Amino acid sequence: MSMQHILSGFKVLDFTHVLAGPTATRVMAEMGAEIVKVEFPPLGDISRFLPTIVDGRSAYFVQQNRGKKSICVNLKSDEGKALIYDLIKQVDVVIENFSPGVADRLGIGWDQVHALNPRVVMCSISAFGQKGPLASLPGFDYIAQAYAGVTGMIGEPDGAPSLPMLGLGDVNTGVHAAAAIGFALLHRERGGLGQHLDISLLDAYFHCHEINVSLHSLTGRVPTRGGHHHYAVCPLGLFRHGDRYVCIITLDNQWPSLCKAMGRAELGSDERYNSNAKRVERAPEVIALVQSWVDAQASVESIVATLAEHHVPCAPVMSIADVVNTPHMIERGTVRKISDPKLGEVNMPGMPLRFSGFPTNIPLEAAHLGQHNAEVLSSMLGLSPARIEELRAAGVLHANPAT
Amino acid sequence: MSMQHILSGFKVLDFTHVLAGPTATRVMAEMGAEIVKVEFPPLGDISRFLPTIVDGRSAYFVQQNRGKKSICVNLKSDEGKALIYDLIKQVDVVIENFSPGVADRLGIGWDQVHALNPRVVMCSISAFGQKGPLASLPGFDYIAQAYAGVTGMIGEPDGAPSLPMLGLGDVNTGVHAAAAIGFALLHRERGGLGQHLDISLLDAYFHCHEINVSLHSLTGRVPTRGGHHHYAVCPLGLFRHGDRYVCIITLDNQWPSLCKAMGRAELGSDERYNSNAKRVERAPEVIALVQSWVDAQASVESIVATLAEHHVPCAPVMSIADVVNTPHMIERGTVRKISDPKLGEVNMPGMPLRFSGFPTNIPLEAAHLGQHNAEVLSSMLGLSPARIEELRAAGVLHANPAT
Repeated sequence: MSMQHILSGFKVLDFTHVLAGPTATRVMAEMGAEIVKVEFPPLGDISRFLPTIVDGRSAYFVQQNRGKKSICVNLKSDEGKALIYDLIKQVDVVIENFSPGVADRLGIGWDQVHALNPRVVMCSISAFGQKGPLASLPGFDYIAQAYAGVTGMIGEPDGAPSLPMLGLGDVNTGVHAAAAIGFALLHRERGGLGQHLDISLLDAYFHCHEINVSLHSLTGRVPTRGGHHHYAVCPLGLFRHGDRYVCIITLDNQWPSLCKAMGRAELGSDERYNSNAKRVERAPEVIALVQSWVDAQASVESIVATLAEHHVPCAPVMSIADVVNTPHMIERGTVRKISDPKLGEVNMPGMPLRFSGFPTNIPLEAAHLGQHNAEVLSSMLGLSPARIEELRAAGVLHANPAT
Repeated sequence: MSMQHILSGFKVLDFTHVLAGPTATRVMAEMGAEIVKVEFPPLGDISRFLPTIVDGRSAYFVQQNRGKKSICVNLKSDEGKALIYDLIKQVDVVIENFSPGVADRLGIGWDQVHALNPRVVMCSISAFGQKGPLASLPGFDYIAQAYAGVTGMIGEPDGAPSLPMLGLGDVNTGVHAAAAIGFALLHRERGGLGQHLDISLLDAYFHCHEINVSLHSLTGRVPTRGGHHHYAVCPLGLFRHGDRYVCIITLDNQWPSLCKAMGRAELGSDERYNSNAKRVERAPEVIALVQSWVDAQASVESIVATLAEHHVPCAPVMSIADVVNTPHMIERGTVRKISDPKLGEVNMPGMPLRFSGFPTNIPLEAAHLGQHNAEVLSSMLGLSPARIEELRAAGVLHANPAT
């Protein structure tokens, strides 16, 4: 086998759907792993029906499933289960993100998988983990986010919390899962056996509290959301200019520079403002000072340019349209155009794991439901075309080229 | 060497500070890697001065640096640089999160590191990546977040965006880095050489857009923040009860159950509301309907219980105080009490990567600045006590037990 990419030669049997699980195998597909996505008849992964849909093809699905082979197998038939068990014996990794307990009921829980193949690494992804009082709760990102004390830390202090309109929890949990799989494969490569990984949105969200948990534990204070200005650093926040916003961050060593940039150099050493603690105490005053300077500027671009000149951290709050048209994002491939048979050319986020020894982008395509039934069963299990046709006719295998 | 944990035997030379970089080596320390954190005189990692501070000891620092050895070396001295070069020859991983260009100027850039040790995996973490027009921008989480189109997707649509009051970007970028390191070590274990990993907050944030990028690309629509109710699913949002909020999520298959739970079973099949598309069109009406039911309930707890009974996804928006007192979080170890010489017993987030073959918690302690100067230089480089004392006296080595 030729080593084309970092995971070439590794085989993954992938029972995941929608977002967290597919993210884990998406990054592994980009690293050259052979991902066999197992879907169930009649519909397969429900993300095949999530927006944006063009000609029956979901861009949501394509983004998360490029480079994966799709087999669609009726796991409730004895023959379907036998096929899956034979595949489990052939792979390095099994991954699933069903609700806890479902994999067991389907006959593909850890005990069963481990008995079939002691070298296999199995990763289970869930909202709250495999066990415990909350384990059976539904696995939506926002549900875990609320329970992790994250939602409560986002939004204006005198209003409702805000829901981030993107899959921060699911996607990052998928990366946690990929990380754990990588370390478990490394362990196996050094002579270890397979093991079971228990990855949850709850844990992945909760360890992002870098200050809140210990602050509460040591002081009794309950930290809360601060809206668009930070509660502990000033000025650190979002300032409005027209219908846009700029983020300005000023730590102690940048305060004199900000004052200079604002044409108020004398404030840099002013006793009332010359430490972060003092500025936090006079936050409304300091914020008003910066806002009035922002108001007097010609544009967000000129604000960013002036502050950059003075080495004051500053960023325009960008829309998606802004991001995808920013030269840096295109040059780096943070956004990239991929080509899909039905969607055509479409922008997608780039691969976030970059290795100097391998290309960041390899050509990948998303599969229609059951596209690789024959290919996988013949190459991995040696099934004959006649046998595959028999299984198809019996409804054990299914496909839908329209997806 | 005994295999105590999954990364036992791996050595990491860690030049990181504050959050994203230290997160990567924190999870590796929890997996048994030997992390030698290199800090610079006189102060070391500036996170040693971030809140909450008890008796000169920062809980912020402790949380991210448990289980790491600290050496404090003056890299600007020839002797200091020679020590570091000798250590680079001994380790498996070098990691840094300076601004791009700084590692090169310090003499520890990829070319230098690779020349010293071709087997070493080097990971560089930055806000925008190692190259490109924005690479030199300051590496704050919120700066990358604004440029990634993430900040703009959080907050009320008619108000300012909101800044999440936790390190979502830095911590998750650290996990991306750990993942990349794991895969690069796996590659090396299979006969490959070391390589350079280029991990950025920008990429880590941007690939969390699971819908936004392709939606914009295919339709021209510019998605924007939706506040506390989702723009594409209804009802999916936060509902106020007293001074608290509950998250309620209702997809098509849950709508009849929600109606039943609200004592309005007849609405489950009502033509006006019987698809998500229709409900999104009548969102203000639907939201008001759910809110009026919420208003009539006794407590957030009874809302959660009633909806759970009807299998409608629902969660209380928890404060940090709520989370750390929830039995599930304690049983699972999502929150755990750690013991620190100065802080005493303090709550910290748990280890998010869990392996069935190894304990999730191993005893770890954070080091004071330079605590392991002698230990590391004697065990890894074979320096004599006299030589170490000489280096200390010459100011090449530094320590501060008060941190």
